Amino acid sequence: MLFLVNMVVNVPRDVPTDQWDALVATEKAYAQELQRSGQWAQLWRVVGQYANYSIFDVPGNDELHELLASLPLFPYMTVTVTPLAAHPSRI
Amino acid sequence: MLFLVNMVVNVPRDVPTDQWDALVATEKAYAQELQRSGQWAQLWRVVGQYANYSIFDVPGNDELHELLASLPLFPYMTVTVTPLAAHPSRI
Amino acid sequence: MLFLVNMVVNVPRDVPTDQWDALVATEKAYAQELQRSGQWAQLWRVVGQYANYSIFDVPGNDELHELLASLPLFPYMTVTVTPLAAHPSRI
Amino acid sequence: MLFLVNMVVNVPRDVPTDQWDALVATEKAYAQELQRSGQWAQLWRVVGQYANYSIFDVPGNDELHELLASLPLFPYMTVTVTPLAAHPSRI
Amino acid sequence: MLFLVNMVVNVPRDVPTDQWDALVATEKAYAQELQRSGQWAQLWRVVGQYANYSIFDVPGNDELHELLASLPLFPYMTVTVTPLAAHPSRI
Amino acid sequence: MLFLVNMVVNVPRDVPTDQWDALVATEKAYAQELQRSGQWAQLWRVVGQYANYSIFDVPGNDELHELLASLPLFPYMTVTVTPLAAHPSRI
Amino acid sequence: MLFLVNMVVNVPRDVPTDQWDALVATEKAYAQELQRSGQWAQLWRVVGQYANYSIFDVPGNDELHELLASLPLFPYMTVTVTPLAAHPSRI
Amino acid sequence: MLFLVNMVVNVPRDVPTDQWDALVATEKAYAQELQRSGQWAQLWRVVGQYANYSIFDVPGNDELHELLASLPLFPYMTVTVTPLAAHPSRI
Amino acid sequence: MLFLVNMVVNVPRDVPTDQWDALVATEKAYAQELQRSGQWAQLWRVVGQYANYSIFDVPGNDELHELLASLPLFPYMTVTVTPLAAHPSRI
Amino acid sequence: MLFLVNMVVNVPRDVPTDQWDALVATEKAYAQELQRSGQWAQLWRVVGQYANYSIFDVPGNDELHELLASLPLFPYMTVTVTPLAAHPSRI
Repeated sequence: MLFLVNMVVNVPRDVPTDQWDALVATEKAYAQELQRSGQWAQLWRVVGQYANYSIFDVPGNDELHELLASLPLFPYMTVTVTPLAAHPSRI
Repeated sequence: MLFLVNMVVNVPRDVPTDQWDALVATEKAYAQELQRSGQWAQLWRVVGQYANYSIFDVPGNDELHELLASLPLFPYMTVTVTPLAAHPSRI
Repeated sequence: MLFLVNMVVNVPRDVPTDQWDALVATEKAYAQELQRSGQWAQLWRVVGQYANYSIFDVPGNDELHELLASLPLFPYMTVTVTPLAAHPSRI
Repeated sequence: MLFLVNMVVNVPRDVPTDQWDALVATEKAYAQELQRSGQWAQLWRVVGQYANYSIFDVPGNDELHELLASLPLFPYMTVTVTPLAAHPSRI
Repeated sequence: MLFLVNMVVNVPRDVPTDQWDALVATEKAYAQELQRSGQWAQLWRVVGQYANYSIFDVPGNDELHELLASLPLFPYMTVTVTPLAAHPSRI
Repeated sequence: MLFLVNMVVNVPRDVPTDQWDALVATEKAYAQELQRSGQWAQLWRVVGQYANYSIFDVPGNDELHELLASLPLFPYMTVTVTPLAAHPSRI
Repeated sequence: MLFLVNMVVNVPRDVPTDQWDALVATEKAYAQELQRSGQWAQLWRVVGQYANYSIFDVPGNDELHELLASLPLFPYMTVTVTPLAAHPSRI
Repeated sequence: MLFLVNMVVNVPRDVPTDQWDALVATEKAYAQELQRSGQWAQLWRVVGQYANYSIFDVPGNDELHELLASLPLFPYMTVTVTPLAAHPSRI
Repeated sequence: MLFLVNMVVNVPRDVPTDQWDALVATEKAYAQELQRSGQWAQLWRVVGQYANYSIFDVPGNDELHELLASLPLFPYMTVTVTPLAAHPSRI
Repeated sequence: MLFLVNMVVNVPRDVPTDQWDALVATEKAYAQELQRSGQWAQLWRVVGQYANYSIFDVPGNDELHELLASLPLFPYMTVTVTPLAAHPSRI
């Protein structure tokens, strides 16, 4: 089941740089693991923003929330989820 | 899988009254059939508006779109879909 | 009397973790007590957000405000209340 | 139980003037009847707009929706409802 | 002359609790004094929010601003003012 | 008593040109009469829009609504009213 | 070069059904041709809406505008374009 | 004096095609004349929209309004004007 | 050349009171000097807000930005600028 | 390929003045280097705001993001990117 997810990162000003860098590194590793599993199907940077648009392919809503809420940067992100369906003109 | 759905009906001014009444009657019958099947799990009127909030319980995104796009009033509605997940404090 | 309530939690950055965890635990206990009493009739997580949609079933507006303002996380939440009425197509 | 209600009238351009005037007259009579019954407790014009702010005093959500949806101008209005509660500083 | 006023309190996180409680107590005393004088004609809590809707009855714009800007919580509030006029359907 | 008023004209597409021109001419005459009386104290065009910003100087809210609702173009305008007060830095 | 494109179809009420159906059929053929050429890389239906989210892979801005403005339904759509870039966590 | 101007064309559905085409042709001729005079300094299409962003270089606000209000498509456009100033980092 | 300017002051919570008072005093002196020179042509308080609406009469955009950016409170204000032109109904 | 870019600077309150000044100086040097290379084609101040509108002329989306994300003030800016295309009325 597919979802378009928009994540905007709000960098906190009170987290020390090295702690933040560690968080970002963990996020990256986790994101790549989810990509390899096929659940994080697509990932693009939004031009000019610390943000991404992603496609998630998951069994359902609960699984999607589980994945998103487990992101190391989740507490620092504004997340928007749009459920997608098959399009009749899709080849 | 649960979704909160908000439907706002924009009554068209160029559909004859009897044709509109027929549409509304078909909509009602269809809505009740979906309620009986358990897919349209909850249905409430928004106070002061020609609108509803509903809970749908469906196998997935494709099925939900299929149901919503088949509503007789779909061409006259603004529909918003919010995916829901289990809440950890739910008893 | 039914109300749709949306609660979005804005986690404060200046409350120590253990104090926050204690608040969340109290919130959970209180939420479950209200669910058992039937007043907090439904509770769902919004996918991708630290937020919920809930249905409250209360005698009136004053009682609803009393319940919401007593939530341990109330000072950290943005709360939106939508009054609901019976829908004519409800079976 | 008190509610703040905002009604904005969107005058339709395709209803003949005399038909519209008749609607407005019926609306006025109905509004005054509801004021006499105490349910439409307050009624003010918004300066510069074909709109009002009103206070309704009704037994509950269902009754309020019933009243509002029965307004002759209801199909031509955008209605917003805000539930009110007792204020602790009220004398 | 009547005005609908909406006040939303944004509780500051850097004011000590006892100092805040003192402010709130002063605010309450001042609000009650203005109610007794008839200038703060109505006062309701917005359900689910640290906010109120109020009706002020004052000689003019300058007097209203004077009253609002003198509220002890004024620096912590978002205030919206809507001028009201007599409604032709008012009995 | 001063008010900042913004009027945006939404030209109707179903009023014949000569009828519209007549309305605009009446509006202009009425606007100039109100300027001469001192009630419509200032009048500016918003660059790039069929809109104006105006200052009205009137005894009160009721009088302002009376003036605005009597404008020949009132049914075709979106009007926003902001009450103004004396500024402490005004010389 | 990748772009996320959101197209919302606003069905006109004054186009005869068969003419509309013909337009939609042409749109579908054109959309499938662009998918085959690889320029319309992804296409999903937004659940509950007559809308899609799409990924376009085109040489540049001019080419993208050319494609979008040539869509048979272009005059009836609200289109939003978000430029995408490579994401550093993309595997 | 420079201004960033955004023009969004709202194609009317009740103007016959040949009349509209004539309007667009006149608009184009007028736009090109203003470009040659240097007043319409820059002109770009917004990707995916019937809209443009433009830079106008004019003696003042009155002249800019005169130019914009004289555009043949002015009655069908939503126009937004942003005044620009010299930037200290401009080489 | 005339501009309508809206300034909303966002009082910072980390500037000591005496430092803030000094800033406000300098702002007032500067505002009065600009009023005397005729450039800050009008100045009104927005009722219920720490904000003003002003009319500036300046030679051009660059001069207006220069004036606004030099305001002692500029770093603490949200400023909106609307260019004004002569209105054809102005007497 | 052209893009309209809007950058709004949100001055942080917790960065020491000299550190901020150093950042701004580096930003200026970098901005001028990009202007000389032709990539930052136009740069204007928005009147009354710590913001700019710019035109970038770059090979593609990836290059634009690279440039913007490398701006020394990028962590303190809200950036909006609008892709531009050739306009048919451009001379």
